[in-house]
Amino acid sequence: MKNILLTVEYDGTCFSGWQRQPNKRTVQGELERALSVVCSCPIKINGTSRTDAGVHALGQKASFKGDFGIPTDRIMLAVNNILSGGINSLGKMGDLRLISVLEMPENFHARYDAKGKKYVYKILNYQETQIFSRNQYYQVKKPLDLDAMRLAADYIVGTHDFKCFQAAGGEEKKTTVRTVYSLNIEEEKIDNEKRTLSIEIKGDGFLYNMVRIISGTLVDVGLGKIQPEKVFDIIESKDRQNAGHTAPPQGLYLMKVYYELEELIGL
Amino acid sequence: MKNILLTVEYDGTCFSGWQRQPNKRTVQGELERALSVVCSCPIKINGTSRTDAGVHALGQKASFKGDFGIPTDRIMLAVNNILSGGINSLGKMGDLRLISVLEMPENFHARYDAKGKKYVYKILNYQETQIFSRNQYYQVKKPLDLDAMRLAADYIVGTHDFKCFQAAGGEEKKTTVRTVYSLNIEEEKIDNEKRTLSIEIKGDGFLYNMVRIISGTLVDVGLGKIQPEKVFDIIESKDRQNAGHTAPPQGLYLMKVYYELEELIGL
Repeated sequence: MKNILLTVEYDGTCFSGWQRQPNKRTVQGELERALSVVCSCPIKINGTSRTDAGVHALGQKASFKGDFGIPTDRIMLAVNNILSGGINSLGKMGDLRLISVLEMPENFHARYDAKGKKYVYKILNYQETQIFSRNQYYQVKKPLDLDAMRLAADYIVGTHDFKCFQAAGGEEKKTTVRTVYSLNIEEEKIDNEKRTLSIEIKGDGFLYNMVRIISGTLVDVGLGKIQPEKVFDIIESKDRQNAGHTAPPQGLYLMKVYYELEELIGL
Repeated sequence: MKNILLTVEYDGTCFSGWQRQPNKRTVQGELERALSVVCSCPIKINGTSRTDAGVHALGQKASFKGDFGIPTDRIMLAVNNILSGGINSLGKMGDLRLISVLEMPENFHARYDAKGKKYVYKILNYQETQIFSRNQYYQVKKPLDLDAMRLAADYIVGTHDFKCFQAAGGEEKKTTVRTVYSLNIEEEKIDNEKRTLSIEIKGDGFLYNMVRIISGTLVDVGLGKIQPEKVFDIIESKDRQNAGHTAPPQGLYLMKVYYELEELIGL
């Protein structure tokens, strides 16, 4: 019995999220369809993160087990060929592809063995909206106070009960305590008036919509609607009503899943 | 009778091109649908350039005439609101919008009065394909010789019979002689290994697929498949078979339509 770990990259724009659903185009659904063809048997995969519709991934992970004839090192090319509808000479490509395929020990599980994850939330801060960035950034027209956002971010780092940043509708979790190892906001100037902000967050796990609510709260801080020090009280209150808005899905990227604690905490 | 000139911006990815077609989503079709609602009468527009499926525009022009109640300065907001399905507070936006609406003299025509156009063709030159750039660049993995491409470009500037760069299938033109006023290739380095090339071309008019065939020919020169000096002979031959391949639509952007010759030739 082989146990296979996939690394998956996708542009979430045209998917109804990760999770398989009848009559909808989902990442899990498309991958299982292609893998079942390539492995000549029905394949069900376990993904690490159930990303929402519109959310992107550069390093999603998923695993599956089975006895199948195709050598492991041929799976990637075969699956990508199906997913892209056959790559042609002009470099036409699809919105989903495998970027690595590895054989793992039999007891490995892509989701339960994950020690943590890194997400990036991308904001385009510019007074005019940009049509070609609409599916890949949260576009905020008013100026954002980056210093205030960074101050607020510091209150979030650490081990806390993050119930205030949890949306209703996710699966029931045993505890809402999580550890955020780092939360940095990088600025990139495109020109004098236009810049992007990338909120990078690493943690041992995230509640439903937690990164989007944290990002929305930081935007509200940047707009002056929430004082940076108030974020301490928001966390203490454990009340979703006190936090900021939920930032839209298209700014969110699942960057990396960590299976080694040392790598996650940067040792 | 009012005569209205529109400036239109669109991401061509999800359109079957500019021209109205039954049961297909086209730029002209979507604009006419929204304008007919806003003007309370059936509107037909004349576009300057019939861009193909997948081709983008930042400055397409179109005009239409009629007697309608809505003040001209209210048309843009009303049409954009319909096109975006109602802009919400999170800055959700569509893939098509008006960026200006002007009242013109009665005898003005967006297409027949155009003195020329500027297109940009964008190439991502990098050894690994980039999923998030797939609809906005022609991705060329092998290194391109920019000096050779620039040498070749110089043969194209000027007044020539450009039959060699004309694809079959367009509307019949009286003559295949056109003037290319300028053809520049700008390089932008993203990092040491990754760069974009922007082929900017200005001319008094372009034959069917002319910019894409010129771009494909320049890529073939950059790859060493065609010698730069050979481009002179290719033009002389007036034979499409001698030119390079047709570069794919997603790299092409209609940037600007000129109604003043002085502006077009940069006086």
